[in-house]
Amino acid sequence: MAIKIHGRQLSPLVRVAMLAMSEMNVESEIIEDDMRSPEYLAKVNPFGKHPAVEFDDFILYESRAILRYVATNYGGLHLLGSTPKEKAMVDQWVEVQGCYFEPPVRSLVTELYFFPKFLERVPDVAVVEENLSKFEKLLNIYDAQLAKTKYLAGDFYSMADLAHIPMLHRFVVSSGKESLVTSRKHVNAWYETITSRPAWKKIVEQYPDV
Amino acid sequence: MAIKIHGRQLSPLVRVAMLAMSEMNVESEIIEDDMRSPEYLAKVNPFGKHPAVEFDDFILYESRAILRYVATNYGGLHLLGSTPKEKAMVDQWVEVQGCYFEPPVRSLVTELYFFPKFLERVPDVAVVEENLSKFEKLLNIYDAQLAKTKYLAGDFYSMADLAHIPMLHRFVVSSGKESLVTSRKHVNAWYETITSRPAWKKIVEQYPDV
Ligand SMILES: N[C@@H](CCC(=O)N[C@@H](CS)C(=O)NCC(=O)O)C(=O)O
Ligand SMILES: N[C@@H](CCC(=O)N[C@@H](CS)C(=O)NCC(=O)O)C(=O)O
Repeated sequence: MAIKIHGRQLSPLVRVAMLAMSEMNVESEIIEDDMRSPEYLAKVNPFGKHPAVEFDDFILYESRAILRYVATNYGGLHLLGSTPKEKAMVDQWVEVQGCYFEPPVRSLVTELYFFPKFLERVPDVAVVEENLSKFEKLLNIYDAQLAKTKYLAGDFYSMADLAHIPMLHRFVVSSGKESLVTSRKHVNAWYETITSRPAWKKIVEQYPDV
Repeated sequence: MAIKIHGRQLSPLVRVAMLAMSEMNVESEIIEDDMRSPEYLAKVNPFGKHPAVEFDDFILYESRAILRYVATNYGGLHLLGSTPKEKAMVDQWVEVQGCYFEPPVRSLVTELYFFPKFLERVPDVAVVEENLSKFEKLLNIYDAQLAKTKYLAGDFYSMADLAHIPMLHRFVVSSGKESLVTSRKHVNAWYETITSRPAWKKIVEQYPDV
């Protein structure tokens, strides 16, 4: 039976959950329910967010918690790292994704892609400038790290890389500012490597809307 | 040899690292260096944040990654949960701490305690109102959860609870808005339980500045 993911397939964080399953060859299906409904808040996620996932005997929300659970319990790849030090580096870069990557890139995608496309609204120039500047500084740190190791946490693909894929891909294909990524040698090579994984390609083929 | 924690003891996230060590009876010492210095950025943490911790053969930054590493490698308590489901619930509530608890409470502590005390600056009423409202909604969800289980992730103390202690304690003792916590039966009982742990009391005794 396919595992149920609550959320819209367009949402990058929902795609993190989809991608985790895809990497593990676990079948999943999307339930596009209303995250503000009283039922959803009472039974699925009191914080009113997507994604949330129904596993055998419990529901789990928060994309990074879902990712950890899938990586730990559906085996296969060592997405969490193998040694204590590797695991620590994965955890560190997962935090970097959540704290420093996600907020500016989400804001840029919202302003530069979502607003014009779905709301006929023009981007707020000040917000865009501020977040572009934050994102550039971040990418310089990533470029320095990726000059040393092939992936963020070391020379192995991990959930730290995985967690970046959907939002970074969205940014590259929809923001018009993709040169931030492509102009940085090591970031660009990393971007090419992680987005050409079969597990991600399958999702993009199934849902080619961007 | 005591493990070196880079950061100021006053900072709640630095205290998360201190508390993790304290729970595991690992000796730690504070290094109050400048997180903006070129040396710090080059050798300790390129993101220019505290805390960062020097373990035997590597440096680790990001408070929650440090917490996971200490909980995993210095044994003792089952701060991470025991079963797959328990572990997932711990991960979920650690994300809740980072995404929904930290930002509003940090802002309230900054406005209501830090600004007046250290910068002779008055709080921004709009910012305070907005974050109080966010925090109240959050505490209602916590109260409902804590009516069902003694701790956030279940009937066991975990790193999800631990990660809340320094900032929540700071809020209660310094904001003047502690009734948000004390007026909610289950939140208040949880607050009393977690802040009376010997590992936390030791830190407050050593650094009684608030
Ligand atoms: N920290 C959460 C964030 C989830 C989140 O913000 N999801 C978005 C969709 S990608 C959402 O539900 N947004 C609605 C809202 O923020 O009210 C996670 O990583 O799962
Ligand atoms: N996500 C980081 C946040 C670290 C953080 O914001 N630390 C504060 C001190 S508590 C800091 O270094 N602030 C300086 C700044 O944000 O520039 C963590 O959990 O360790």
